[in-house]
Amino acid sequence: MRIKITVEYDGTEYCGWQVQPNGVTVQQRLNEAVEALTDEKTSVVGSGRTDSGVHAAGQVAHFDTNSTIPPQRFAAALNSVLPADIRVLSSCEAEEGFHARFCAKKKTYSYKMYIAETVRPLWDRYACLLAYPVDVAAMSSAAKLFVGEHDFRSFMTSGSSVQDTVRTVYSASVTTDGDFITFTVCGSGFLYNMVRIMAGTLVEVGAGRMSEADVVSALENGQRTLSGKTMPPHGLTLVSVEYL
Amino acid sequence: MRIKITVEYDGTEYCGWQVQPNGVTVQQRLNEAVEALTDEKTSVVGSGRTDSGVHAAGQVAHFDTNSTIPPQRFAAALNSVLPADIRVLSSCEAEEGFHARFCAKKKTYSYKMYIAETVRPLWDRYACLLAYPVDVAAMSSAAKLFVGEHDFRSFMTSGSSVQDTVRTVYSASVTTDGDFITFTVCGSGFLYNMVRIMAGTLVEVGAGRMSEADVVSALENGQRTLSGKTMPPHGLTLVSVEYL
Repeated sequence: MRIKITVEYDGTEYCGWQVQPNGVTVQQRLNEAVEALTDEKTSVVGSGRTDSGVHAAGQVAHFDTNSTIPPQRFAAALNSVLPADIRVLSSCEAEEGFHARFCAKKKTYSYKMYIAETVRPLWDRYACLLAYPVDVAAMSSAAKLFVGEHDFRSFMTSGSSVQDTVRTVYSASVTTDGDFITFTVCGSGFLYNMVRIMAGTLVEVGAGRMSEADVVSALENGQRTLSGKTMPPHGLTLVSVEYL
Repeated sequence: MRIKITVEYDGTEYCGWQVQPNGVTVQQRLNEAVEALTDEKTSVVGSGRTDSGVHAAGQVAHFDTNSTIPPQRFAAALNSVLPADIRVLSSCEAEEGFHARFCAKKKTYSYKMYIAETVRPLWDRYACLLAYPVDVAAMSSAAKLFVGEHDFRSFMTSGSSVQDTVRTVYSASVTTDGDFITFTVCGSGFLYNMVRIMAGTLVEVGAGRMSEADVVSALENGQRTLSGKTMPPHGLTLVSVEYL
C-alpha cells in the first residue's frame, strides 16, 4: 500500500531533504522512522528537494509499505519516533497511481524577510534580515512580472544540469505583516534556487538598485548576472504542494 | 560610566538569564562579551531573571565600564562577539542613579500558544501546543480578573522564599492572531513562574475546567492548588521593561 504524508519541518538543523552521505537530512529521518515502525527498508519520496536550512510547512511525500498500521494512524505513529523538528501532519492511503514528485502540479513557497538594524534572535530563524529600508510597493509590483510562462534560466544557480528551464508562475505577491515582508510564489515547479533568486531580485528592486525594466530584461535575456543575488536559505519555506 | 542595554534573545539553548555553575546562561555570554571588548571583569545586571528556555524581546540590563567605546557603539561592538541568538538592540549611557533591576517599574510578558493536533515544528519554538480547543473569549474575560493589586501567592511556584507576594497587574489580555493565542500581561513585577501559572489558569478556563469564580477563589485563598498548572517555558517572552 502507498501512504501519502504531509510533513512540516524546521530545516535549520538539516542538510536539506534528500539523503546524502555527509549530513543528516529530513528524508533520512523519515526513512528511519518508517523502518522503525514497519521493519521494512524504505525510501520516502518527496514532492521535491528542499535545500539545507530551508523549511517546510506542507511538504508532501509517499512511501510503500506492507504494514498493517491503518493509513491514518501513520502520522501519529511516525511522530512518536521522529525528532520534534519534523512532524507528519497527516497521513492517508494514496490514490491509485499517486506519486509525490511526478504528480505534483503546483508548489507554493514563501520567502520571509524583516527590516532591522541587526539580526533579531526571535525572528531570524524563519526570516532573513534586510539591514536597509525597501520599497514594498515596488517589490509587490515587480513580483507580478514573474507571473506567466517564462524561461527562468536567469533565475537558476548556474551549473545546474536542468535542460528545460521554462516554468509557469501562477501567482506572485509581496505582503507585509507587522515587521515582516513576505514574498509568496506559486508555480508549476521551480529551478534550483529560483525562489531565492526571485526574492533577491525583488530586494534589489525594493532598494532601488533594479528597475522593473531590469527584471523584464533578466527574464528575457536569460543571463544569471542580470538577476539579483541568491537569498539565504533560512527565509524560505515550502508552504504547500498541490495535486489534481 | 554605566551603560544601559536592551537585549533580545532566543532562550532555547540557555539555562536562563542568571549565571550558574551547571550551564551556559545569557548573562554569562554578555559578561564574556563585555570582558572581550573592555578587558574588564564585569557582571551585567538584568532587570530580572528569566528561566531556562524563556525568551526576551526587550530585556534591559546595565554594566559599568571605564572603556572609551562610545555608549551608543557598545551595541554593535557587543554583537560582534556575541552568539547570534543574543543581540543587543541598543545601548546608551545610563541616567544618573539608573539600576536595571531596582529602577524597573513595569514589565510586560507574553505567553504564546497554538491549537493543533501535534507539535508544529515551525511554531513550537516560541509558542506552546494546546492539543484541544479553548474558548478564547472566556480566557480573555478571565484575564481581566488579574488586573489590580492582588496577593498572587497562589500563582507562585511553592518553595519560593519571597515574603511579599502582593503585586500590581496593570493590564492583562488574551488575543488571537491567525493560529496563535497570546496572553499579554503588564505588571509591577512577577513572582516565580507567575506568568506561566496565570497562563495555565487561563487555559483551564478556556477548556471549561475552571470558572471565573474559581480564578477569583485562587486569588483570594492563596493556595497554589487552586490555580492552573505551570505552562512550559518556551511560550514565554519578556517583551519589555519600563522605567520612569
